[in-house]
Amino acid sequence: MHFKVRAAAKEDCKDISRMIMELAVYENMADQVKTSHEDLERDGFSPNPFYECLIAEVPDEHKTKDGYTVVGYALYFYTYSTWKGRSVYMEDLYVMPDFRGKGIGTGLMAKVAQVGVEKQCVRLQLSVLEWNKPSLDFYIAKGAEDLTAKEGWHFLRFHGQTLDTLAKEAPKD
Amino acid sequence: MHFKVRAAAKEDCKDISRMIMELAVYENMADQVKTSHEDLERDGFSPNPFYECLIAEVPDEHKTKDGYTVVGYALYFYTYSTWKGRSVYMEDLYVMPDFRGKGIGTGLMAKVAQVGVEKQCVRLQLSVLEWNKPSLDFYIAKGAEDLTAKEGWHFLRFHGQTLDTLAKEAPKD
Repeated sequence: MHFKVRAAAKEDCKDISRMIMELAVYENMADQVKTSHEDLERDGFSPNPFYECLIAEVPDEHKTKDGYTVVGYALYFYTYSTWKGRSVYMEDLYVMPDFRGKGIGTGLMAKVAQVGVEKQCVRLQLSVLEWNKPSLDFYIAKGAEDLTAKEGWHFLRFHGQTLDTLAKEAPKD
Repeated sequence: MHFKVRAAAKEDCKDISRMIMELAVYENMADQVKTSHEDLERDGFSPNPFYECLIAEVPDEHKTKDGYTVVGYALYFYTYSTWKGRSVYMEDLYVMPDFRGKGIGTGLMAKVAQVGVEKQCVRLQLSVLEWNKPSLDFYIAKGAEDLTAKEGWHFLRFHGQTLDTLAKEAPKD
């Protein structure tokens, strides 16, 4: 199937928001989604954006029964390694179920890699849940190294009350 | 000991670069450091910087035997959760050995949390090697959740040849 991968525009945020929710519903986590398409518009399409996004689009004749032509997205941002320099991190990669197995996921991810390489990024990184074997296998097959398995990296988070408490410990200027 | 935490300026990049190397030497990984202070200047102090950095400074009377007053740093950048929105990620936290146990590490991390909260970030995230028990214990004691242990998150990376190969698979515009 023919598809096109392009940089998301502000007008695509409703489609991106719809697909974020589809992914969360699939994972039985719809109640976890707190971002609206307005948040996505503000955070991705202002100076110093918090993220960038690519979308996959199919021609009108392949639109979904609900009339959608935007059928996948990859959301990413830039990070930094103090040893290696510029890196790119892919936060989400999603393709609507009816459009899988057609190379759209690979196309989106490869484009993230290309955009990163063009910005002199030396790494493309991402995180996967270990029970999500199909995704883990997909990335490994593409050549990704599992640094948690290989080097023992653990991912930690402060949020909610612990984040507020920590912020209040900041020394005065 | 009195210390001050402040945003790094371009002129601090030599100090930051020195401490990045100190940390790598301590870990027997000095050969892994490919970034120079010029890289740090370019990547952190231009429009749309790839990172931000805080440094800890002590008064002149406490300077090191080599004459340094900048004795610690926290390097961080902004990331994005499609479910929760803005987040901040702390890539490095380092305090010179002679200045540990004085609250400087906590002060730097708390300031990163404060800067993040002021930017409406709802998470402060970081990664730790599982054999680095003192650091892991430090973060957990401060309230961090270990998402690799709790939810099974694995951290993956494409780099070098695998990144180039992937980038070449990007669909044509």
